[in-house]
Amino acid sequence: MYEPDCIFCKIAAGEIPCGKIYEDDDILAFMDINPISDGHILVIPKTHSARVHESNPDVLAKLAAKLPLLASAVIKGLGCSGYNILCNNGAAAGQEVDHVHFHIIPRNPADGVFTRWPKYQYPKGRSEELLEKIKSQLKA
Amino acid sequence: MYEPDCIFCKIAAGEIPCGKIYEDDDILAFMDINPISDGHILVIPKTHSARVHESNPDVLAKLAAKLPLLASAVIKGLGCSGYNILCNNGAAAGQEVDHVHFHIIPRNPADGVFTRWPKYQYPKGRSEELLEKIKSQLKA
Repeated sequence: MYEPDCIFCKIAAGEIPCGKIYEDDDILAFMDINPISDGHILVIPKTHSARVHESNPDVLAKLAAKLPLLASAVIKGLGCSGYNILCNNGAAAGQEVDHVHFHIIPRNPADGVFTRWPKYQYPKGRSEELLEKIKSQLKA
Repeated sequence: MYEPDCIFCKIAAGEIPCGKIYEDDDILAFMDINPISDGHILVIPKTHSARVHESNPDVLAKLAAKLPLLASAVIKGLGCSGYNILCNNGAAAGQEVDHVHFHIIPRNPADGVFTRWPKYQYPKGRSEELLEKIKSQLKA
């Protein structure tokens, strides 16, 4: 539940201050102190888990149920054009704090925040091969 | 519920084929045909809504409750190191199909998929100013 070495657990417990946007029994939303766009916020479950795949589904459901409210407040409050909701899992994915957190990143046209989307097409048969690898784990 | 001009509604209704990973009454997960990494999948609610802030909280909760299962299958099936969960909202944020969709993007060290994280620090007072703009919308 509470991980003594986790900075987000300390923030959730009120032991470290934050720019609090919203709080209820299950989640906390607060300003990212190192934003990548103005008004960049973080939404965290109060219960500790490092990655989404290690998280309690009910906890994630409660967090996601608040995303419309929080994203609306970001859109209306800042007058931005759009936003990314992003959850990085693992160091290779850019996760810097090992407590699940969803970034809400306000966006405007040509802001240059994320510009890279290196999409490609699979060679024949590759998509089916990867699909089977993933699906096989759902049957286990 | 069903938007006749929406390609993801057509996929959810089975009118357009997809590389299906998982399906239940509420959500569908399938292979992205233009991946940005091998095994890149999309998770969508079957019910149409364009953006998270316009979505039914219960629908998002049901989707999020399945993210641990799906992310586990991606990690175990592909043996990747991590993953991003990303939902782009609005053209400025990179959204290309106007039906809410969460990307699960498998990641490995130094894969170069996302390399940009242009973080900065707010000048004094700016964070508090933005916080009030967002919070004011929660009181409305």
